[in-house]
Amino acid sequence: MRGEVTDIRTAMAATGAEVERALDRLLPKPVDTEARLFEAMRYAALGGGKRLRPFLVMSSAKLFGVAETCALRVAAAIECVHCYSLVHDDLPAMDDDDTRRGKPTVHKAFDEATAILVGDALLTFAFELASDPATHADPMVRSTLVQALARAAGGHGMVGGQMLDMLADHETFDIGTVTRLQRLKTGALFAFSCEAGAILGRADDSRRQALRAYAHDMGLAFQIADDLLDVEGRAEDIGKRVGKDQAQGKATFVSILGVDRAREQARLLADQAIAHLAVFEQRADPLRSVARFVVDRRS
Amino acid sequence: MRGEVTDIRTAMAATGAEVERALDRLLPKPVDTEARLFEAMRYAALGGGKRLRPFLVMSSAKLFGVAETCALRVAAAIECVHCYSLVHDDLPAMDDDDTRRGKPTVHKAFDEATAILVGDALLTFAFELASDPATHADPMVRSTLVQALARAAGGHGMVGGQMLDMLADHETFDIGTVTRLQRLKTGALFAFSCEAGAILGRADDSRRQALRAYAHDMGLAFQIADDLLDVEGRAEDIGKRVGKDQAQGKATFVSILGVDRAREQARLLADQAIAHLAVFEQRADPLRSVARFVVDRRS
Repeated sequence: MRGEVTDIRTAMAATGAEVERALDRLLPKPVDTEARLFEAMRYAALGGGKRLRPFLVMSSAKLFGVAETCALRVAAAIECVHCYSLVHDDLPAMDDDDTRRGKPTVHKAFDEATAILVGDALLTFAFELASDPATHADPMVRSTLVQALARAAGGHGMVGGQMLDMLADHETFDIGTVTRLQRLKTGALFAFSCEAGAILGRADDSRRQALRAYAHDMGLAFQIADDLLDVEGRAEDIGKRVGKDQAQGKATFVSILGVDRAREQARLLADQAIAHLAVFEQRADPLRSVARFVVDRRS
Repeated sequence: MRGEVTDIRTAMAATGAEVERALDRLLPKPVDTEARLFEAMRYAALGGGKRLRPFLVMSSAKLFGVAETCALRVAAAIECVHCYSLVHDDLPAMDDDDTRRGKPTVHKAFDEATAILVGDALLTFAFELASDPATHADPMVRSTLVQALARAAGGHGMVGGQMLDMLADHETFDIGTVTRLQRLKTGALFAFSCEAGAILGRADDSRRQALRAYAHDMGLAFQIADDLLDVEGRAEDIGKRVGKDQAQGKATFVSILGVDRAREQARLLADQAIAHLAVFEQRADPLRSVARFVVDRRS
């Protein structure tokens, strides 16, 4: 078990470095009069993060023999969407966070207006990447990627979850509401990350569904682990404030289930996620390791 | 001349009503727990505006015999992008505006967090609309639409222009800088609106370029007229604050050229825009009228 988690860390670090290079190559260079925008986009997207979503894209694409250069562009696009959501979430009017990944958040390092625009530009850039012929020669694949990404990221996905999180009365939340919130807020983009490999590989529906089901369970396991880290983790390890859910009176899996049941639930979900991967045999081992990693991680 | 402007107002009002109905049909209904987000999206996108960009899409699509139902979806998508940009521009950290189109801005009617998320969701929804098979049966057309829209709206287009506007030192601006700023901030989306018709109609390159050139000149004429209205217009007609450029010390075509030369320049640009349309003969009359309308309008 320990060995496996070390392996997955190595594999994820390698993919992370590759995605970092891809983003560095793809993101606009800070030249010209808009330099500040491009600088801040790079600040937001480069140099940090587990790159978990890109790893899911790369691993699921590999199942279908997709060219790595294609998958890497989609991985970069999803990471841009993820990073934009962090930049906007950190804004004073939202979660009001000063640090992220151990460094000042974008509105602290630059200013609020720049942070708003950086988020807008990163989101838009993701769609530019996904629709670019360099991402896949088949326009049907590109168009399907864009549509699936837009659905996962929009009002019926990530942004909808964020809205729920910001405004709902957390005191009245039961486990069903928290599950729904997290399925939208983080689950939708996880599901798209796995599905992207199937879209790129023009996989049949049953395989695409298997990956969605995996992502769904794994995403919830990830979120429960996140809630546990917020209670038990150390800020130095995580690179952001801890204990903030409780301070903000937010309902989480941990506040509703308690630490022990939450941890048990996370492990059950990880097992369940892995069970969906049977059809891919051992080729899906990296995805299996991810499911174990997300519940065992300490940051 | 007066008669022509009345006609174009009638034509634009008819298209505006059609786009309003399309948006009402297409935008998510405010049900479920995320209702507040969808309500605020509808508040931001429905019930107002000249719908100038949609009119450009519909008029340019008509040149190539594009089905109206297809063009209307793209028109709705562009209007979502335009409305998202207004919602974010109005935020306290940006232009800090309390009214827009004669009613409270989104962050005033709802709150700042909702306004940030509404902008994010409208932008994302635009890409969902453009990539949907209902927009065009040919995936190459959809994929090209998405890519062109992303370029027009992103860091090298609208958002880049917004960044320049927010942060550049306006005192040092010359006419070249103001032109560049406006070409990015408003010109890029105008150009895409006209180009969209050509993409939907799979027009040849020369016709697509003619429409881009038209949009470029017309867009600058539009902006100069906007600057003139900020100096000379009445808040009741325009539905937003006037005199704010000057109050904020912003460089505009009017502050650099003076009122008379600016008005002359707007008319020259409108004539120049019209000259690009020769290839389309009288079928482009609505676009010619738009070019005259934008410099003659009083709101």
